[in-house]
Order: sequence, then structure tokens, then C-alpha cells
Amino acid sequence: MACCRCFTILIALCFGLPASSVHADQRYVLTSTEQNVHRDSWKLSGGNWSVEKKTLHGGKQEGVDLITIDNGVLQIDVVPTRGMSVYEVRSGDMRLGWDSPVEDIVHPSLIDLESRGGLGWLEGFNEWMVRCGLEFAGHPGTDEFEDGAGGTTTRDLTLHGKIGNIPASEVEVIIDSAAPHRIRVRGIVYEKFFYGPKLKLITEISVVPGQDSFRIDDTVENLGAQEQEFQIIYHANFGAPLLGAGATVHAAVKSLTPMDAHAAESIDGYATYLPPTAGFVEQVYLVEPLTDEHNRTGAVLQNAAADRAASMHWSAEQLPYLTIWKNTAATEDGYVTGIEPATGYPYNRKVERAAGRVPKLSPGQKRQFTLDIGLHRGKDNVKAAVEQIQSLQGDHPVDVQREPPKS
Amino acid sequence: MACCRCFTILIALCFGLPASSVHADQRYVLTSTEQNVHRDSWKLSGGNWSVEKKTLHGGKQEGVDLITIDNGVLQIDVVPTRGMSVYEVRSGDMRLGWDSPVEDIVHPSLIDLESRGGLGWLEGFNEWMVRCGLEFAGHPGTDEFEDGAGGTTTRDLTLHGKIGNIPASEVEVIIDSAAPHRIRVRGIVYEKFFYGPKLKLITEISVVPGQDSFRIDDTVENLGAQEQEFQIIYHANFGAPLLGAGATVHAAVKSLTPMDAHAAESIDGYATYLPPTAGFVEQVYLVEPLTDEHNRTGAVLQNAAADRAASMHWSAEQLPYLTIWKNTAATEDGYVTGIEPATGYPYNRKVERAAGRVPKLSPGQKRQFTLDIGLHRGKDNVKAAVEQIQSLQGDHPVDVQREPPKS
Amino acid sequence: MACCRCFTILIALCFGLPASSVHADQRYVLTSTEQNVHRDSWKLSGGNWSVEKKTLHGGKQEGVDLITIDNGVLQIDVVPTRGMSVYEVRSGDMRLGWDSPVEDIVHPSLIDLESRGGLGWLEGFNEWMVRCGLEFAGHPGTDEFEDGAGGTTTRDLTLHGKIGNIPASEVEVIIDSAAPHRIRVRGIVYEKFFYGPKLKLITEISVVPGQDSFRIDDTVENLGAQEQEFQIIYHANFGAPLLGAGATVHAAVKSLTPMDAHAAESIDGYATYLPPTAGFVEQVYLVEPLTDEHNRTGAVLQNAAADRAASMHWSAEQLPYLTIWKNTAATEDGYVTGIEPATGYPYNRKVERAAGRVPKLSPGQKRQFTLDIGLHRGKDNVKAAVEQIQSLQGDHPVDVQREPPKS
Repeated sequence: MACCRCFTILIALCFGLPASSVHADQRYVLTSTEQNVHRDSWKLSGGNWSVEKKTLHGGKQEGVDLITIDNGVLQIDVVPTRGMSVYEVRSGDMRLGWDSPVEDIVHPSLIDLESRGGLGWLEGFNEWMVRCGLEFAGHPGTDEFEDGAGGTTTRDLTLHGKIGNIPASEVEVIIDSAAPHRIRVRGIVYEKFFYGPKLKLITEISVVPGQDSFRIDDTVENLGAQEQEFQIIYHANFGAPLLGAGATVHAAVKSLTPMDAHAAESIDGYATYLPPTAGFVEQVYLVEPLTDEHNRTGAVLQNAAADRAASMHWSAEQLPYLTIWKNTAATEDGYVTGIEPATGYPYNRKVERAAGRVPKLSPGQKRQFTLDIGLHRGKDNVKAAVEQIQSLQGDHPVDVQREPPKS
Repeated sequence: MACCRCFTILIALCFGLPASSVHADQRYVLTSTEQNVHRDSWKLSGGNWSVEKKTLHGGKQEGVDLITIDNGVLQIDVVPTRGMSVYEVRSGDMRLGWDSPVEDIVHPSLIDLESRGGLGWLEGFNEWMVRCGLEFAGHPGTDEFEDGAGGTTTRDLTLHGKIGNIPASEVEVIIDSAAPHRIRVRGIVYEKFFYGPKLKLITEISVVPGQDSFRIDDTVENLGAQEQEFQIIYHANFGAPLLGAGATVHAAVKSLTPMDAHAAESIDGYATYLPPTAGFVEQVYLVEPLTDEHNRTGAVLQNAAADRAASMHWSAEQLPYLTIWKNTAATEDGYVTGIEPATGYPYNRKVERAAGRVPKLSPGQKRQFTLDIGLHRGKDNVKAAVEQIQSLQGDHPVDVQREPPKS
Repeated sequence: MACCRCFTILIALCFGLPASSVHADQRYVLTSTEQNVHRDSWKLSGGNWSVEKKTLHGGKQEGVDLITIDNGVLQIDVVPTRGMSVYEVRSGDMRLGWDSPVEDIVHPSLIDLESRGGLGWLEGFNEWMVRCGLEFAGHPGTDEFEDGAGGTTTRDLTLHGKIGNIPASEVEVIIDSAAPHRIRVRGIVYEKFFYGPKLKLITEISVVPGQDSFRIDDTVENLGAQEQEFQIIYHANFGAPLLGAGATVHAAVKSLTPMDAHAAESIDGYATYLPPTAGFVEQVYLVEPLTDEHNRTGAVLQNAAADRAASMHWSAEQLPYLTIWKNTAATEDGYVTGIEPATGYPYNRKVERAAGRVPKLSPGQKRQFTLDIGLHRGKDNVKAAVEQIQSLQGDHPVDVQREPPKS
């Protein structure tokens, strides 16, 4: 199938999809290296939902693919060109996302991860949710590890790895034939190099028409023939209007540790947010979460008025560590907080490995990561969301470490 | 508005634009990230002028935008994809430009500024005028500065910064409705990064139909909430036929300093040029210009026959320093001289900062930089252009430093 | 000529091309920076052959050009976007090529050669034949050399240089009017930088209709005005099914040296291959070839059944050194061997220069490199190919060095 520019499908299904489960799921390939397909623009519409693909133009975003899923309640922007990151989620007066000084959705061909002393990743950082990983995540710096030939070698790692700047090789839209006719955008991103990792990410961002929640369901597989370290951080970022002076973050906390001496100074106020503050220096807190009997945990970000909130829930077996990143800088510099479930903390991999927080995949092994994200409106709904987190905490005391870890 | 390929407007205005000033200026958007527009090709013609946009193909220039303004006398090539650089200006047998060994107008996605020990910028260097900056300009090397968190940090800077390799986010063509119906190509280039500078460059290259001069009018604004250092060098480069054996450069010189010991050896001949000379090693001279009562200064490059010249004029309040770069190497290696008004000299930012030549912008602050460029034909006109510079010099002695600065 | 998308020529020459030599060769320009041409798709067909150009889509291969020459017997994939590398050659059940973990044919704009400590080249490495060079080839690391200004300078070189990741500036298809109507794909790739090399590669991959052999004919020219070092390695890579347990490589060997201590341990078995072996660490052997009276030499890779083989022949005056790279790792990690005629060995340029293996081109000087590649089927043909190599060896003893060179 050739590359089709300006190819638009408009299926006017006025009353939604046929409910009969004998029908197969509808599948639409938008990008495929295997089939040599890349659609520049495309749209599929149901009665109260749509999925639209367009190509961005101008500046650093020339040629970037953007898929918007609209389920009638949420509009979810997925960026296949940037590793299937979720740029923004909008719902009426709510949004998951933030105002980064990086305004374009930057094409990876214009990103140099080695730039600025390994901080080049920040030149494209503006998503609501970007994955850090997969070979490595966390702070730049020199890692030291076995070279596979019996010796040790060093490598200068760049901030937060490569996966967020790798274009998806396969992208398809799937509409479940069975009720509730879940809408799925599925992508495959390969982080595979010769003499390097052979990791495959299959990600599915999905939503049910009419609901105010959605799911990110990822599988990471080691396609190589040798054991492979990996790291993944779900770097979910929230700005105004949800974030604001007096907004609060709620997590079920077994232990709370400041990432550095600067964060240690403000640890007592870790759960509340300042207004935009020029010159604010980031504060990072490391959380071991408490879980329910199914090993599930979550976090809620609540606005100051306690009438809007976003929640994230996940399995602590999948993602045992949570980082809370407070960056309540001036609006112009990026007023944002990160709620980041992960396989570890954002130290350099050298630190993480020494601490036992760098998992491995044996050849052919897969691991799954599922995040459920909800938007909550109205004081009662927000209160319920927060209380669910509080019920995980129960009367467990928080083990507050007042000093950063000795590295 | 969707992306339009091969979209051509041909407005046959046989007698020029309507002179009535009640008409609004004509504005044509060629590129806009805000409007998601990028025109592959476009043309607007008046009676004796035109503006044409095309997209370059092949090699390293695939996908590069090129706008040519033809005012009937000058043809000015502007490259939105490369930070609104001016590739070349042609006028009959004259040209502002040079023959770089880099022949393609290289797409920034193929430039790695970190390449060759921070000299990757040279892999795309072939413009008549490229801006160096904005966060930093000058020589590569390790800078050391305050990190904003109370400590100091180091960073390996790359040659001449990033702005020349950032695609413009917004590009429009404006035709003034009022006489003299100035033709303007306006671009906006953002050098904005998270945990980095938030600088906005608005540049306008403009020309009046039928004139043999044009203007570059730039505004740099700090969109961040904190004070921001910046540097800008207007790296204007001249080769044959203007440059040749016996060509001369004329500036009003308060002080003249060799950049290094090698330049010091030839300082007495700084104003005259050799023919193409294989193995020539660059000589760089640092000038503090003398100015008129309006704080304006200028420089003229005159050919050997004294019948062709190019002049540049600017405000020394805006651009207080001038660098003269002599690189009269073999034609094949790049026979060229740079006349470079700037906020400082092209040392590494560490040196420039220590010398007090790195300006700062407070939050929201803007600074403007205007260059007026003229082409001069005939011995009388050339003589007049040179005499204007000589009048600035008057009987002020030149303070010749015979040693490079102690760093 | 404008950029033409989806432009297809179908010349149905049912009985091949006119044999009359009075006709000019047919020439078709597919890419030209000079003419501003880039065809997205194109096809030319004769009776039993065709040349087809298509553009790849999806993932990291978005926008990559692929030309497939089909002479009725061989299908040869040439990649103009990646320096005119040859991705794969197919012929019935035979193939020249391998299964790299890098599956996409990666666009150079997504390659960062500085990545992974200078090993970024490996992120795009999957071709049957990729040239290493031209300014430098071989291992990453710090080189030290004269800076042209009388001093010495250092530079961190990246693995195998840049030429394999530079898009061709000019690409044309030529069909000889004279019998045997050779089909030629000719490309020009420039590795030219300011204050850097000015090297031009003209390459022609050509084949006669119906034959099971083809030719790579390259010319490297120094367009600069000063003497220029260069290096070129023809990194030809073979995987299954030709490579397999018991496959053998045959070369005419004057001297055989292990590249490192690890290779030294297995030097006696250098000519035979293991099956895919998880955790296999590469073994590299350095060969000075023996030649015939015309200074020609060659190498043959023969499968385990001795009924399929590939041969390469070249002039040892052009390419005096041969490297045999054994990387019989697990299939998933890249099961491959390299047979690499070259101007030197793949040590860092610093080592190669000290050993006298870095040639120079004086200004305007050209050097030609021709490789003849053959596919051999059936025990008799394979035996003949091997015997031709054995005849070069004759009764010359192999000078086996059991220790790697002292560096």
C-alpha cells in the first residue's frame, strides 16, 4: 500500500458501532514499516466519537504525527512520532498537560540527546506523559557496567533515555466490535540497536466512548538473546489549571525520601504546591507506595478548590516506585509537577543498579505496565478519589527520611 | 488551514501595488506552527518584483525552504529552515555570499552541533549571513557558570550556538500598502528549552522595490521569567568576486586587537586581502568601532578595482563590537572574509563573560538589532561609501594592540 | 524540474534495449541537488529487468529512498539516503545480507553518531555493504594530529565515519545503449565540510541483465586544495542462510593477525564459523592478502553444504588490507560475518596513521575502488570459486601472528 497523503475516511455511523459481537474489530493501519504505509491525514467518526490523525507543520514540528481520540468527553492527543507519548488530554475546563517553554511538538530528528551535557531530552519535553527509558532512564552521567566480554566499560548516559524520541514503527486504530466498543490506538516502538538493547514496546492508549477515564497499557519485550536491563518511568506532568497554589498531591506512602539536600529542606510540605514562583528550584521526592490486597496503588492531584482532580492507578508489582517532581517555577519557565510511577527512581542508572532498582528481562520475556487515569469533577467526586488513596494509607505511618540517600 | 503542496499564487499586478494607504498591508502566511501551515511552493509577483518560496530537494538539502525576494535589483535568498539566515544576495555581477565547500543548504536535522569536537556548525556553514547565538555564540569549549540553584556548573558549548540551525516557526511575507511598498519577509525563531533559555527572535528582511540596499531588522526577547544571558554575532561572509587580491575592508576603528598570536603577526596588513592562498590560516581581528553622533558605525568591503563595494551600517549601541575574520584560503577550501557586528567577540562565552561582553535580558525585555546593507557600483559610489567610513574615523588614531588579550 | 511525487515511467521494451550503439545511453535523474529534483517513486522496466525507486515509510525509515535493480537474476537494493549503501542482494534462495536487530533502514536524520560513546553508527547498521569512511573509519576514540596551523589537536572520532549516513546529492539510473546493456545506478555523495575534508564519492552499482554477478565501482576525489587523509572500508556483511555452522571463509593470506587478545585465542579456527551462539564476542582477524600477477585478490564465503557461495574480488593496489569480522552471535542479536577489503584495518585512525595505513589524496587527486561480487550455486561452481582463491595462495605459507599488534 502506497503512502497516501490527505486520505480521509469519514464513516458516518450515526448511532455508534454495530453491537453484534460476531463482527470483527475494526482495524485501521495508519503507519506501518512492514506494509510501507504512512497516512498524512485520516479521520474516523462514530456518532459521538472520532479518531483523527493529522500531520503537524512549521518550525520544529514539521512532519510530526498527531492522533486525537475524542470519546465525546475526553480529547486525547497521542504522538506516534515521539514514541507514542500523550501530549495532552482535554475535557471541558480540565486538562492533563502543562505549558512547557517548548511549544512545538518537536520532531526527533531535531533532538540531540547529547546536547547541553546530556540534557538534550529537555529540548522536546512538553508532554503530559512521556515514557523515560527503555535501555536507561534518569539523570545523565557516566554509568559503569559489564561489557559482555568479561570486562567493564563506561558510558555517558543522557537524560531519560531514547524511547520518547523514537518514531513508532507500527500504528493502528482499533474499534472493538463488542460493547463497550473501546477505542484503541496501538503503537509499536522499537529500541533496538546492534551491540545494544533489543527492546520492543507495544503500547495501547484506549478509552470507552463517553467515559472520563482512559488507560495506557504497555508491554515491554526483550527480543534479544541475552538478559537485558531496562528502566521505565511514566513521566506524567500536570500544570495549570489543575496545578495551582494550594493544590495537593495524594499518595499512599510507605516511605518518603528527598532526592537531594535541597528537597530535604521542604519535605514537610511535599504534598502541597506553591503558586508559580520565579526561580523555584525543583524538589524531587521518592515514594515507596502502600498498596491494596491486589498490590495496586495510586495517586491523586487535586486542585486548590478541591473540585477538580486527576487520578492515576497502577500495580505496584509492575511499577514499585513513585517519584513526585515539584517544579512550581514561573509560568513562563514551566509550572509543572510530575507524578511518575516507575521501575525505579530517576538517579543515574549506576545508582539505580547499585540500589537494586534496575530490572532485567530474560530473552523473550515480557513485562506489562498498565496505568488507569481518571478525571474527577465536583467536590464529591474529588473527595471520593482522595479518600480512596487515604484508604490505602489507613493508619500506616509514613516513614519520612529527612536526608537524601547516601550514594 | 491544511498543508498545501505546490500551491502557487500569481498575482499579476502589472503596475505595482495600489498606493492608497487606506488599504491594509498584504500578508501571506507561508509557515505557521500556530495555524499548522507549511507551503511547499508559493509565488507572489508585482510588476517589477516578486517573492517566491520553493522547497529544495536532494542530498542534505531535502525539505529545506528557500524564499527569494526579487525587488528588480536585488535577489535575496532567505532560508527559514536555517533560522532565517540569508544565503545569498545577487545583483547583476555582484553578489553577497561566498563559495563554501558546503554546497547544499543543509537541513538542520542533518547537523550535529556536537560533531567534530563541537564544530558541527561548520558542516552547514555557507550563508552570506548567519546569526550566531542566541544562548551562546563563539568558540566551543567548557563554560562555567552559576546553575540557578546556588552552585556552579560547567557546560561544553558548541561553536556559534543553535539559532542558525533552528527552523522558523512562523514565516510571512508582508507587502506594505503605503509607498514605497516595502517587501518584508518576517520570521519567528524560538530558542526555548525547558531548564534553558526562552528566547524569541523576530526577524524581518526587507527591501524597497528598485533599491540596491536592504535591511535586516531583528528583535530578541526574553520570554522567560528570569534574567537571561544572550549573545549575537551577525556572521556576514563575503567571497569572490567582491573579495579578491587587493580588496580592502574599511572600518572606523577605535581599537584593533588580534584575536591570537597568529593574527598578531599580520596586524599591519589587516585591512587588505590576499588572493586565494592554499594553507592560509584564519586571521581574526577584534574592533571597537568609532561612531557618529547617533552612535552609528559601519564597514565597507571594496574590491581591488575600487568599483564594487558592499557596506553594512548599524548602531554601536545595539552591536558594540566588530570582528573581522580573514580566511583567504584556496577557493576550494573557502575563500572568504567575515565582517561581523556583534554583542561581543567570538571567544568562548566564559572569556566573553569575564570581559563583560555577555549582555543580559531581564524577563520580558527586548533588544533590537538593525543592519542596513548597501551595494555600491562605480568608482564614485564606492569612493563615497568608503569616505563615509573615513569620516567616522576622522583624525582619531587607531589604538593598535600588538598582542592578543590575556585570557 | 520540480519535485515529482508518484511519478512512474513504464517503458515496455519487450525484447530489451535497442542494441544499436549509435543510440545514446538512457539516463534518468532520480535525485539532484543541482536540478532540485527528488522523485518519490519511479520505475523503468525492460523485458527481463527493471529498476524501481520507492520511498520508505513508517518508524525510523520515513522518507528513506530505496532503489531496487532487478536484472532478472539478482535484486539489488541500493539506499541513496544512506550514502549509496547496498542494503541487500537477493537471488532465489540466496541472499547477500543479514538480519540485524536494526530492522528499519534508518534515516540519517535520526542517527546521532556521537551516541553511546561514539557508537551511534551501530543504530543504523544493517546493510549488506556499507562504506566506512571517508575522513575516518574504524574504532571510536581520540585521535591526535596536526591542526594545519603548526600545532597538534585532538578529536574524538566516532565509529566508522560519516559517509554511510550522508544522503546522496545526485542519483541517476543509466542504461547502456551498447550491449550488454549494463544497468547502472550512479550516486554522488559529498563529505565536505568547512575546515574539514572536501571529499567526493562517485559510486556506481551496476549489473548486466541475466548475470549472477555485479560490480561496485567507486571513485574518491579530494576536491580541497590541501592534501587530505582518507580511509575506506567496504564493510560487506553476510548472515544466514549463507552463513551457518560449518560455513567457511576463504582468502589468499600472506599474513593473519588477531585484532585483539580475544581473537588471538581462536585464531586457528578463523576460517570456520559457529552456529548462532548467544553471548558470542566478536573475533576480528587482519589479513594481508596474496595477489595474482595483476595484483588482484579475493575472498569467498561458502556455506556448510558447499553448494552456495559468494565471492568478492578486488585490486590489492586499491584495497591492500582485508578484515574478517566474525560475529556469530545469536540470531536475535545479529548473526553475521564481515568480509572487509579496505585501505587499512579498523583500529582508530591514530593507530592506523602510526602504522602507515592512512592514505592521502593530493589536491584534485582521485582514487578508484572496484569490487566484483559473484554468487555461486552448485557444488562445482562453488568449488571453482574456492579453488580460484586457493590458486592465489598456492604454496605460500600463511604468516600467522599469534599475538595482536603492539599498539
